Amino acid sequence: MDAITIIRAKRDGHALTPEQIDWVIDAYTRGAVADEQMAALAMAILLNGMDRAEIARWTAAMIASGERMDFSSLPLPTVDKHSTGGVGDKITLPLAPLVAACGAAVPQLSGRGLGHTGGTLDKLESIAGWRARLAGDEVTRVLRETGAVVCAAGEGLAPADRKLYALRDVTGTVESIPLIASSIMSKKIAEGTGALVLDVKVGSGAFMKTEADARELAATMVELGRDHGVRTVALLTDMSTPLGLTAGNALEVRESVEVLAGGGPADVVELTLALAREMLDAAGLPDADPARALADGSAMDRWRRMIAAQGGDPDAPLPEAKERHTVDAPASGTLTGLDAYAVGVAAWRLGAGRARKEDPVQAGAGVELHAKPGDRVRAGEPLLTLHTDTPERFEAALAELGGDAIRVAPEGEAPARSTVLDRIA
Amino acid sequence: MDAITIIRAKRDGHALTPEQIDWVIDAYTRGAVADEQMAALAMAILLNGMDRAEIARWTAAMIASGERMDFSSLPLPTVDKHSTGGVGDKITLPLAPLVAACGAAVPQLSGRGLGHTGGTLDKLESIAGWRARLAGDEVTRVLRETGAVVCAAGEGLAPADRKLYALRDVTGTVESIPLIASSIMSKKIAEGTGALVLDVKVGSGAFMKTEADARELAATMVELGRDHGVRTVALLTDMSTPLGLTAGNALEVRESVEVLAGGGPADVVELTLALAREMLDAAGLPDADPARALADGSAMDRWRRMIAAQGGDPDAPLPEAKERHTVDAPASGTLTGLDAYAVGVAAWRLGAGRARKEDPVQAGAGVELHAKPGDRVRAGEPLLTLHTDTPERFEAALAELGGDAIRVAPEGEAPARSTVLDRIA
Repeated sequence: MDAITIIRAKRDGHALTPEQIDWVIDAYTRGAVADEQMAALAMAILLNGMDRAEIARWTAAMIASGERMDFSSLPLPTVDKHSTGGVGDKITLPLAPLVAACGAAVPQLSGRGLGHTGGTLDKLESIAGWRARLAGDEVTRVLRETGAVVCAAGEGLAPADRKLYALRDVTGTVESIPLIASSIMSKKIAEGTGALVLDVKVGSGAFMKTEADARELAATMVELGRDHGVRTVALLTDMSTPLGLTAGNALEVRESVEVLAGGGPADVVELTLALAREMLDAAGLPDADPARALADGSAMDRWRRMIAAQGGDPDAPLPEAKERHTVDAPASGTLTGLDAYAVGVAAWRLGAGRARKEDPVQAGAGVELHAKPGDRVRAGEPLLTLHTDTPERFEAALAELGGDAIRVAPEGEAPARSTVLDRIA
Repeated sequence: MDAITIIRAKRDGHALTPEQIDWVIDAYTRGAVADEQMAALAMAILLNGMDRAEIARWTAAMIASGERMDFSSLPLPTVDKHSTGGVGDKITLPLAPLVAACGAAVPQLSGRGLGHTGGTLDKLESIAGWRARLAGDEVTRVLRETGAVVCAAGEGLAPADRKLYALRDVTGTVESIPLIASSIMSKKIAEGTGALVLDVKVGSGAFMKTEADARELAATMVELGRDHGVRTVALLTDMSTPLGLTAGNALEVRESVEVLAGGGPADVVELTLALAREMLDAAGLPDADPARALADGSAMDRWRRMIAAQGGDPDAPLPEAKERHTVDAPASGTLTGLDAYAVGVAAWRLGAGRARKEDPVQAGAGVELHAKPGDRVRAGEPLLTLHTDTPERFEAALAELGGDAIRVAPEGEAPARSTVLDRIA
């Protein structure tokens, strides 16, 4: 076995053998295959594809590169949710305590934001005292005590993926369905969840810009989950406009708490309940009633326990940005479009996200929306509020929101569009 | 400008802009673009191609990454030859002194062998005392005194290509016509020759296995040469069977001296004269008579001066391998095939070539042929002699010569095939 033969095989359009895949993932993890060799292989995979058998083996090899967690000693069924990433996607925050309140355990090992999509850990870290990093036995303890844990994945989980993900990020090899599917699923399967619900986003603010690509990604991941004995289902959801009315860390925590208090924007509530029903169904609890758990305060109660169990103070005031800037509606009429990607990049420019893994984020930075597509707006009235600690960032954020990002039609109507587009099982 | 945008552009099938090409070559040379990024870009180029304008700019940027030599102060026209690499291809050895004897100056900055094709410098180093490495002013001095210099290219010549060539070697991105053409031509143009004759090999022992690929490579290089004011012509030549009767360093020097003495195998003499005529024509000396220079000893005289000028002793006995092993003809009849690639790999396994740049080579190792395709052979009579200092290598070499490598037909005739297949100008 050698790297060059394997690169050439994929380059020339051949399927890799199971032995080649096992060897190259193991050798890359050990450092015996160099970054430049894996970069060439990743580009060949991106351009020439992998078939289902190759993707399954690639995923299995990445899982085998590290440890696999095991929650089978818990008395509750485990179920997790993964989103492919969107703008304003704070759903994990109300969803994890909601599902826990309904009787399932939610072990979510999560990542940080990179680029225009936010990261769940960054959002939770805007709560005073809350810790993302837990030791292995702490994960099980928090899960046992509160029914939900959201924390950083340890170094030992799918280390091949950790290394490959960082490499793809700098080599233009992110946008490959086989590589995305195997990256997500290797981490989620190694995490040890019994069931998994995928939220596959489609639209300008998502990595998958077309519904066809999103469907292919969803189907690939559902199949990978089942191959590994994880009950897996996927929802295809809209990401043409941000979810809810906020994009930014503390802003999204505030909105999540509103949802847990029985309020919050309709689309966030709709998607939270849809995903909760799928998770409870996959966990073998089809009769659970998440709408009631939101209404009766039991989800909010779980949220407070879950935050406190990781050192956070659920009553501490959330950080607010030092500076604000209002963007007015450019005309009167119906807001027909508010582009998710533009809002996501604007929030990132304001300091809510990071350009490199090492960068810090601003807890209070982000974009607040005062209207959603379909709403009537009036020229000169506030449409967006930009938040940042560093006002010199306003100019770059405003540049992202020009052009076609905000669309108002005098007599127009926004096309009615449901947040959940389809279900793939 | 950033590497990821450039990688994505080529990945998505777009042509790179001149500014992108200039930036990425310069940044890679400086180390600001990482090896893994250039590897991903090289694979995208291999799979998606480059158009003529991109190849021209890529070549120009690699030339601009270092110094360009200038022989315009010489009183003679300069002309060089480059072969794309073959088995038994010792042509440079008789050719350089022959062309010098006819009145042109030959500045050949050459490389070492890698894989199954030999390297001119490795061959000449089997002559006692001969030095491949010359200082900048020594190159001009030897060229002025003897009319020909064959030496190692200095570090300052096309450093971008030097770095990229080593990277391609380990990332499965060698076999790309745009990358091969720009690599060869950037070095040859930076070398400062006024005219250039390319020997583009086609067949099992060549990098180009098909005539269509060889033609495309030849046409691309001829155009690049003309773009940069270097009169360039290419011959397409056969590499389905080794050139001459030897493959190996000292073995090939011996055969080259036979040619300079007026003897030697017919195909080596034919190709040497064909290339000499093209070089002299390109140098503006169409009336020179290389056949006479071979016959009257003036080419041999130049050879001796050229070797001596670089510290070599033209009268020293050549090294011989310690061990020999004879391979007999498997049947009686006509030798219809003797595969160039198999013989090349066998010579490499015997110690004539290297697997890594750092490896030493054995001066005496190689393969000696006792018949060429078209010759009659008799079962049990010697067909090949294998030479090595390390007899444990015989087994690996013999394994390469099995299967279809040697073909004898009882009543067959080898297809008559000229060494020179076509001329592309």
